[in-house]
Amino acid sequence: MDKINLSDKLDLFNETWTPKIISELNGQQVKLAKLHGEFVWHNHADEDELFYIIKGTLIIEFRDKVVELSAGEMIVVPAGVDHKPIAHQEVHVMLVEPAAIKHTGNVKHELTKEKLDWI
Amino acid sequence: MDKINLSDKLDLFNETWTPKIISELNGQQVKLAKLHGEFVWHNHADEDELFYIIKGTLIIEFRDKVVELSAGEMIVVPAGVDHKPIAHQEVHVMLVEPAAIKHTGNVKHELTKEKLDWI
Repeated sequence: MDKINLSDKLDLFNETWTPKIISELNGQQVKLAKLHGEFVWHNHADEDELFYIIKGTLIIEFRDKVVELSAGEMIVVPAGVDHKPIAHQEVHVMLVEPAAIKHTGNVKHELTKEKLDWI
Repeated sequence: MDKINLSDKLDLFNETWTPKIISELNGQQVKLAKLHGEFVWHNHADEDELFYIIKGTLIIEFRDKVVELSAGEMIVVPAGVDHKPIAHQEVHVMLVEPAAIKHTGNVKHELTKEKLDWI
């Protein structure tokens, strides 16, 4: 049970679209990710997903609207809702989502990671 | 499904030790709280609790150690672990914990709120 410094953890990796697990609670995992470019359209059938923006501006396209999130802002994408994250410049995010989730959700894609690492 | 600006939400209240609910996902709630002074020793028998520091320095006393958390740092206090938060100056935190949790855990105290508000 130690404290976690998000900035220190973010210094440990440079890969984009590859969330790293930093903690867990009540069956949820807390992850950090660096995002740059366009992700794929996907949804998570059974899992809500929290995005909290640490640095940069994240655009999330939904089928019916576009949301632009800046540092200090968050959104919860409900289970089953199609979304496509876009980061025109590098974005650092904290995610909270169930341990079992796949980050590309219902889509199998070259960006899909079968197993995420703890840092 | 709208974005949430933590700073805007924090401007909506001034009470200390009274978490306000801002979102929920997968049976967990996300809350904001302003802390100032000393809280009571307590634990949550069945719930892990995440503290993420937005502003200020939060001290959490445990039975066997003391952890000091600054802005950008977080800790998960596991279920059943006694803890006592102390804020010598005002601290703003984001909490993630199960919807059913009582913030004073196993302790009934004048600080205990029976029902938390959404903001």
